[in-house]
Amino acid sequence: MDNAEKLAAFIQQFAALKGAKILVHGGGKIATELSEKLGIKAELIDGRRITDSETLPIVSMVYAGLINKNLVAQLQARGTNAIGLSGADANLIQAQKRVHPSVDFGFVGDLNEHSVSAKQLKTLLDAELCPVFSAITHNGQGQLLNTNADTIASALALALSSVFDTTLIYGFEKKGVLEDVANEASVIAHLNQENYIELKNKGLIHSGMLPKLDAAFTALKGGIGRVIIGDACEISQLESPAGFGTSLTLY
Amino acid sequence: MDNAEKLAAFIQQFAALKGAKILVHGGGKIATELSEKLGIKAELIDGRRITDSETLPIVSMVYAGLINKNLVAQLQARGTNAIGLSGADANLIQAQKRVHPSVDFGFVGDLNEHSVSAKQLKTLLDAELCPVFSAITHNGQGQLLNTNADTIASALALALSSVFDTTLIYGFEKKGVLEDVANEASVIAHLNQENYIELKNKGLIHSGMLPKLDAAFTALKGGIGRVIIGDACEISQLESPAGFGTSLTLY
Repeated sequence: MDNAEKLAAFIQQFAALKGAKILVHGGGKIATELSEKLGIKAELIDGRRITDSETLPIVSMVYAGLINKNLVAQLQARGTNAIGLSGADANLIQAQKRVHPSVDFGFVGDLNEHSVSAKQLKTLLDAELCPVFSAITHNGQGQLLNTNADTIASALALALSSVFDTTLIYGFEKKGVLEDVANEASVIAHLNQENYIELKNKGLIHSGMLPKLDAAFTALKGGIGRVIIGDACEISQLESPAGFGTSLTLY
Repeated sequence: MDNAEKLAAFIQQFAALKGAKILVHGGGKIATELSEKLGIKAELIDGRRITDSETLPIVSMVYAGLINKNLVAQLQARGTNAIGLSGADANLIQAQKRVHPSVDFGFVGDLNEHSVSAKQLKTLLDAELCPVFSAITHNGQGQLLNTNADTIASALALALSSVFDTTLIYGFEKKGVLEDVANEASVIAHLNQENYIELKNKGLIHSGMLPKLDAAFTALKGGIGRVIIGDACEISQLESPAGFGTSLTLY
């Protein structure tokens, strides 16, 4: 999101993907930059942003306004009929404010199996629209909630898997899950749950990957056919015989 | 927008309105506040904001993110199935960057009679959604544009008048068009184009009202049945026999 050249490459490739598609994005680095400019300290615990009453407007602005609308405009320019959404829009994703025994995460939303309205989402997809979700949801009582983008992607894929043959792709800046973080060529082509737990126990998985992989395996357990993690700028290779990124399966 | 109590009153009344409805909002005061916090000077000419490359991200964030998503969440809490949109979303409103002989307005969008996609908008209304538009559009080539909210409301109403029996209401902080700006009781119940030009020539119309009234008469000329200007917090009185605000007609 914070690299214009890579973003343009991603947009071009995403726009070219065939079939019904949904994009989910974050924008944490840009939110942190704006927080700093406004003299508000960004606080993260285990990679999760503490969202107090000063931070919520910032993430709402940056995710749902700045980044979301620019992505939509750029996808429109590439011929994809994008529609930018938060979970509040059309009540598509309803979350609950996180309750944590020791940490007050503030206005952070957690999802459950009833959070996503697959029916309403299908209406938009049937109208040949491409939903673009920012990582903002609501609680149904007027409160916006900051919600992890990886979790949203997983919940959307799960909800849609009852209606569509669904593939969940986590696009990021690496070529896949790496056996050696320092070596970009060490992509693990295939990872199942057993391998994952093994690598995790050995401390070989980079901490930033853990939420993505946990969300991925949750999705697989829920019935998603296919989960892939790979370079967002190489998404056009998704259907190539050479393969793309790390393919995840339960067994 | 910048008064929580009045906003809540408006939301409650808007949510209670029957039939298909669309909300269009600005948020200039809040954008100016954020600009000031970031050390960027807001510049307005004839009430129109100069939108340079530093100001465009600010209005995109404030209008399409902060204000739009909060309005949507609050409408959802009141049982209205709101969906927050910019003109870029679903390519609903395509504008052209303003060309002006002497002033560079920057990233400001103007609309024409082909700007609004009534067909796409009807799809959303048919799905029983309530579109909530921020005053941001795009040019179809990836560029977001800041666009006057009154103009957007007028263009939407015009485009929809071919499909629906359409009423255009400008809600603001006064009870209507006032004969004497200092006297809240001096609401003009009915104003036609001839009266308007007369009052305008006498300098009796407040300058802030001119864009609204110009947009209103443009809409009437285009075929909108009914245009009303009144207090946003009294919108529930719209259908009352006592009347509401200033009713505009061509003749």
